[in-house]
Amino acid sequence: MNTTSHWFKSHLKDMPRDECFQLLESRQVGRIGFVDPDGPVVLPVNYVIHDEVVLIATMPGNSIASHAVDQPVAFEVDEIDEFNETGWSVLVRGLASSVSRDELPDEQDQPNPWAEGDRSLVIRITPSHVSGRYLLPA
Amino acid sequence: MNTTSHWFKSHLKDMPRDECFQLLESRQVGRIGFVDPDGPVVLPVNYVIHDEVVLIATMPGNSIASHAVDQPVAFEVDEIDEFNETGWSVLVRGLASSVSRDELPDEQDQPNPWAEGDRSLVIRITPSHVSGRYLLPA
Repeated sequence: MNTTSHWFKSHLKDMPRDECFQLLESRQVGRIGFVDPDGPVVLPVNYVIHDEVVLIATMPGNSIASHAVDQPVAFEVDEIDEFNETGWSVLVRGLASSVSRDELPDEQDQPNPWAEGDRSLVIRITPSHVSGRYLLPA
Repeated sequence: MNTTSHWFKSHLKDMPRDECFQLLESRQVGRIGFVDPDGPVVLPVNYVIHDEVVLIATMPGNSIASHAVDQPVAFEVDEIDEFNETGWSVLVRGLASSVSRDELPDEQDQPNPWAEGDRSLVIRITPSHVSGRYLLPA
């Protein structure tokens, strides 16, 4: 496995749940994993964490709207340091569902998509599983 | 959708296939999406591109080995600029399969996992779909 270029490997360490949420709250882009008729899909999305729930704003009728809502999904956030070969990642798993206008948090707590287009469909991922790992220097 | 904080939204632009592969070849960490009995999972992995195929080295018996091999999977690579609210992402979809010792490329072209542990199982993702998008400044 090409170990000649790396004398020492980085160490994996599990992350406590509260640190998972601290790191989730520190970023603005994650990746949602869902399944369409051809198999799994992974797409980057803007998100916010509100009351330990992941909120995403997307386009009504797009792939996420059609195939993720009311289905189990995965949501991943990470930070990678290619120079030091270290980083961390957090994985949330749970059911995705659409959020009605009445259920939306105050405007400043709503997701803020960077991309153009009508992203008026807000989806919540209610975590049934949260885990994270650090990849630490050798 | 909290538009008060962003007067102008970033533009999405589709990426030609050759640029998808150039960007795939420029990074060392991507995210594999697969399905286990509880639903979709997204995990970061080291990878290399060899002959337009994604190669990943993982642990025999782990979650990827158990649930991704011989199944359709997704593989995503991105780069995000949180300050400028721009970036790019590439999505590969295809069947994952295990690579026998005879089929492995020369050592310098094999995946080089950063993390400790026996990662002697090499998995190939043969792309049936490759797409990418730029998120460009407003």
